[in-house]
Amino acid sequence: MSPADDIRPGAAPWVAPDPEDPRLTRRVAGRDHTGAEVEVAVTMERPLTLFLNSREIVTMMTIGDHPDYLAIGYLLNQNMLRPEDRVVGVEHDDDTETVVVRTEQETDFEDKLRRKTLTSGCAQGTVFGDVMEKFETIRLPADARLRTSWLYALVRTINTLPSLYLTAGAIHGCVLCREDRPLVYMEDVGRHNAVDKVAGYMRVHGIEAADKIFYTTGRLTSEMVIKTVQMGIPILISRSGFTAWGVELARRAGLTLVGRAKGRRFVVLSGPERIVYDADLSAVDEEHHRHHRKSAREDD
Amino acid sequence: MSPADDIRPGAAPWVAPDPEDPRLTRRVAGRDHTGAEVEVAVTMERPLTLFLNSREIVTMMTIGDHPDYLAIGYLLNQNMLRPEDRVVGVEHDDDTETVVVRTEQETDFEDKLRRKTLTSGCAQGTVFGDVMEKFETIRLPADARLRTSWLYALVRTINTLPSLYLTAGAIHGCVLCREDRPLVYMEDVGRHNAVDKVAGYMRVHGIEAADKIFYTTGRLTSEMVIKTVQMGIPILISRSGFTAWGVELARRAGLTLVGRAKGRRFVVLSGPERIVYDADLSAVDEEHHRHHRKSAREDD
Repeated sequence: MSPADDIRPGAAPWVAPDPEDPRLTRRVAGRDHTGAEVEVAVTMERPLTLFLNSREIVTMMTIGDHPDYLAIGYLLNQNMLRPEDRVVGVEHDDDTETVVVRTEQETDFEDKLRRKTLTSGCAQGTVFGDVMEKFETIRLPADARLRTSWLYALVRTINTLPSLYLTAGAIHGCVLCREDRPLVYMEDVGRHNAVDKVAGYMRVHGIEAADKIFYTTGRLTSEMVIKTVQMGIPILISRSGFTAWGVELARRAGLTLVGRAKGRRFVVLSGPERIVYDADLSAVDEEHHRHHRKSAREDD
Repeated sequence: MSPADDIRPGAAPWVAPDPEDPRLTRRVAGRDHTGAEVEVAVTMERPLTLFLNSREIVTMMTIGDHPDYLAIGYLLNQNMLRPEDRVVGVEHDDDTETVVVRTEQETDFEDKLRRKTLTSGCAQGTVFGDVMEKFETIRLPADARLRTSWLYALVRTINTLPSLYLTAGAIHGCVLCREDRPLVYMEDVGRHNAVDKVAGYMRVHGIEAADKIFYTTGRLTSEMVIKTVQMGIPILISRSGFTAWGVELARRAGLTLVGRAKGRRFVVLSGPERIVYDADLSAVDEEHHRHHRKSAREDD
């Protein structure tokens, strides 16, 4: 179980979506625009309540695969779990819809939470300040590169890999990549769950971030930029658009931010110095109708 | 300021997006896929911290228009503000990025929050239980109808109204409609903010829900279904897809749930008895390329 070694080009991803998993979709009967009976596949969505040791942290809505990676990734990306915290166990219980992350010692966050609730109530507000404080200290590797030939190959591969998106829609995907190869492809009804699952996977398997590229189907908002920077990944690509604060934060952190990546088009609004324009554009197909993901009819 | 009276067909919406508002978008310089310099419009996104009386509730990321409606709608949809609570003021401060909702008397929620934080920490967990408890008690009007001629007219009108979506993308829209007419069209970087702004508008202006239709660009998740039912609106339409739990909850509440509404297609997975198939399908254009919103390249 050390996928970190296998980075051969052309090999299958270490983690790919499993659209055949019967727990992830359900067939539902309904009617179409003519009034005729139809049956369509819809994505599952279930609550999962996360505990850090004995503290209840949050209830998330998730498709329900990889609860262990989701739990660890969530805590990492919220800065509730620090690199130095030793995780000694993750217990998932399907019946009670809970997942418990246990650390060797009480975390700094639990301590803060206890102090905070004694004074002014809920500690969720402290999380944001903490995350931003850490964000300012992160330095991304300057020598990372994104070849446009990798970018076009990645987008093409990701759009055609079997996925829940192609089967049932209403889902987001996040993909950890190296050069032109997708390595870890997670999907979830919550865009941030998909990122968190990748972050959890990286932590559990000790995956290096500096040479990676992150792809998301979601918009390039501040939250998406913060999470990518926190994970230490220098390049973020999306088929969707940007928000102004996402761009601002990416520039502050020196993150390469590529949006609206479809067919042969894309726009870089931060960190253009990492892009190497090596692709022969005349050889890049514009996105054909048959390659169109359901995105053409999925807005979020 | 009583828009509730004006429901003439063909009249302009009471609230429409204002893509010309300079506070809502920013032009940002970058590079395109050929390496050429380009300037693109991106959506603004700023933090807004919400207080209920002296309690800090949450920090939201929003484009920043209508903070008053957003604040009230958020509290309503989280069940933190009850119909019987009297709002005596909403104070928005641009510099500190805060909005304070003041009620005549301390709310039941604040009382619960205080009791809860004394025992087991953060009270966010209680919110979900409360919302579901209320959800089970709501009865939607059985006699509401959705004519397919209205549906096609609504989708066409909404897709062609000037909007931040068409200008800058990376944004969600929610529209309160009656018959074939959009009445309140709100956009926000957060899908749920757009819903909450509509809910706040309805509360402030005392808008009846029973004869309305709700349109969203976002997916039909459990959260979207719960909010629509809480608002008392019997019909929910989206151009996006469904989640299984969204469908389940819609059926439990008797909500008419229409998804994947594009061109002449749509799918109804709950409450089909409210649909009246009166449109002449041969007269309904399939969505033309020029009518395509940027959704074709925006995934979320």
